[in-house]
Amino acid sequence: MSDSIAEPLSFVCAPAIAAKDRIVLGHGSGGRLSAELLRDVFLPMFSNPILDRMDDQAVLEIGGSRLAFTTDSFVVQPLFFPGGDIGSLAVHGTVNDLAMGGARPLFLSVAFILEEGLPTETLRRIVASMTEASAAAGVSIVTGDTKVVERGKGDGVFINTTGIGIVPEGVSLSANQARPGDRVLLSGSIGDHGIAILARREGLEFDAEIVSDSAPLHEMVAAMLGVSTQGAASGQIRCLRDPTRGGLSSSLNEIASQSGVSIQLEETAIPIRDEVKGACELLGFDPLYVANEGKLVAIVAPEAADAVLDAMRHDQRGADAQIIGTVGGRIGAGRARVTLRTAFGSTRIVDLLAGDQLPRIC
Amino acid sequence: MSDSIAEPLSFVCAPAIAAKDRIVLGHGSGGRLSAELLRDVFLPMFSNPILDRMDDQAVLEIGGSRLAFTTDSFVVQPLFFPGGDIGSLAVHGTVNDLAMGGARPLFLSVAFILEEGLPTETLRRIVASMTEASAAAGVSIVTGDTKVVERGKGDGVFINTTGIGIVPEGVSLSANQARPGDRVLLSGSIGDHGIAILARREGLEFDAEIVSDSAPLHEMVAAMLGVSTQGAASGQIRCLRDPTRGGLSSSLNEIASQSGVSIQLEETAIPIRDEVKGACELLGFDPLYVANEGKLVAIVAPEAADAVLDAMRHDQRGADAQIIGTVGGRIGAGRARVTLRTAFGSTRIVDLLAGDQLPRIC
Repeated sequence: MSDSIAEPLSFVCAPAIAAKDRIVLGHGSGGRLSAELLRDVFLPMFSNPILDRMDDQAVLEIGGSRLAFTTDSFVVQPLFFPGGDIGSLAVHGTVNDLAMGGARPLFLSVAFILEEGLPTETLRRIVASMTEASAAAGVSIVTGDTKVVERGKGDGVFINTTGIGIVPEGVSLSANQARPGDRVLLSGSIGDHGIAILARREGLEFDAEIVSDSAPLHEMVAAMLGVSTQGAASGQIRCLRDPTRGGLSSSLNEIASQSGVSIQLEETAIPIRDEVKGACELLGFDPLYVANEGKLVAIVAPEAADAVLDAMRHDQRGADAQIIGTVGGRIGAGRARVTLRTAFGSTRIVDLLAGDQLPRIC
Repeated sequence: MSDSIAEPLSFVCAPAIAAKDRIVLGHGSGGRLSAELLRDVFLPMFSNPILDRMDDQAVLEIGGSRLAFTTDSFVVQPLFFPGGDIGSLAVHGTVNDLAMGGARPLFLSVAFILEEGLPTETLRRIVASMTEASAAAGVSIVTGDTKVVERGKGDGVFINTTGIGIVPEGVSLSANQARPGDRVLLSGSIGDHGIAILARREGLEFDAEIVSDSAPLHEMVAAMLGVSTQGAASGQIRCLRDPTRGGLSSSLNEIASQSGVSIQLEETAIPIRDEVKGACELLGFDPLYVANEGKLVAIVAPEAADAVLDAMRHDQRGADAQIIGTVGGRIGAGRARVTLRTAFGSTRIVDLLAGDQLPRIC
């Protein structure tokens, strides 16, 4: 295997990446700097067995039930974009983090940080969008909070959503369960959300409008688990992730690292829309690092891969699902190596995002 | 009864209060504008039976357990102040919102919104403080999130904490349960937190340093419930509130409004430190509207009031607890009337805070 190593492209210059003593935008990227902040600042102090599993949701045993519990703040700019807005995104993001733990999403809390001067009508539109998105996803918004900061101390609207769901009996998904030989399944095309945000933010126009894929994925997950928990297939879905910040590369690097395995991807199998591909080429972005908000990646036992893929394709969110790679041999924990066989037959390393390719996409 | 109506003092000028089409600081005050935003924007769309109870926490029935679920974002400035910092405050605030539902606090999520350029050392100090506060309160931080916004789009650090607790069997507290004849109990002196923040923010110096009362209250609550749920006393604690934003006046107005009752307070019974009283007089603040972060107000059946007061006084957080008033007759829902008999024997209406006396105190 020849490694023609290509560095991921980045808008952030080298000195920022080197900054250890100050927070830079890259610390919110979902890439290498986010991982460093977690490792150096948060985990040493907050450490406990539940947090240390490092999944997108905590699973809590309470009174005989297993609850999934997850939090996300949303700072996306612009607030409204093709395919969604900060409100629907805040609902979908937390619904999906619950779903990635195999949970049925039930309840959300919503906390707003508003900037003085925000038009009340803007807030109304966002609240209406959250109402619609939560009804569509079957979750109830049951508690909330609102703070206001002075003009110039915020940016219109920030939203935190925190969610509770129930993990069905027999379901146990975690990023540390990938095994050699497992298949890597992706539910559809990559890069739509990040490029839609960028295009709207920068006023870029393409022949075809690029629309965010922001969507709830819990129904597709339920269908996938329905296949894999029947009899012998139980446990055959090892792990689910939604490749948001940091894109597909970050999700797969986290899984590889936590499971102590390598992952090999086939570039030609990864779905990408022509217009997104074109925009990425024009702008110098690597679509493997661009955020998605309505896609998932699944690590599945080889014998169940076809049945799970079939379940994904029967869901409207997974019509373009593909098997995009394979889990390779075990390697030392923390020494993940995700590689991509390109369309030209060469192989390159797909590393964690360095810096911050696209700030504030969620 | 003679009503010598005194308008609450406010730093916010009239035109801002009148603003309906734009968000003003007062919308985050916990006072009248917060209530209007809730009534006009959030409740009409988010409405559901759990949210509509309007308590500081939702109570969810899941798998035979009753879970309390609550969220708060913290935007306090300065980040560090006498008696605490944004980190310990974020833990205490959510622990206390769970405790006010009678719940035993168990788990927290933590979400940071960081401003680019924040010294990493500042973040470390905050994380260390949260670690200490959560250990002291017996809660685990089990999931988290970090976002970064550009310089000038945030203000150092904003923190959201969302909490889960278990409500013990037989406990049912809600702001709509106050009954005529109930006693109003307050766990200690008012105004310490708000004045400590203001003094540090504005560089004011007093003879004695004023220190925030930020503290977890769940142990005192457990002791109070231990008294009132024994045999015949079950249900005799009707409601608990921590008078944070908007101060004691807001908490009591909410309770009066939701229960459709009046409340009469005795000014001379309300504990207040001399230095806080002096600072309020100097600055033109009404201490009834100043935030507290380690106090609670309880509505208790008259026959249980002395026993509950005794339990409060045996806790270090409640040594100065007092019975400060009585629930009066039923009045139309939404037509709350909280009145205060002053030290001079006159009576004044204690209305919801108009405007925002002290922005960003939590």
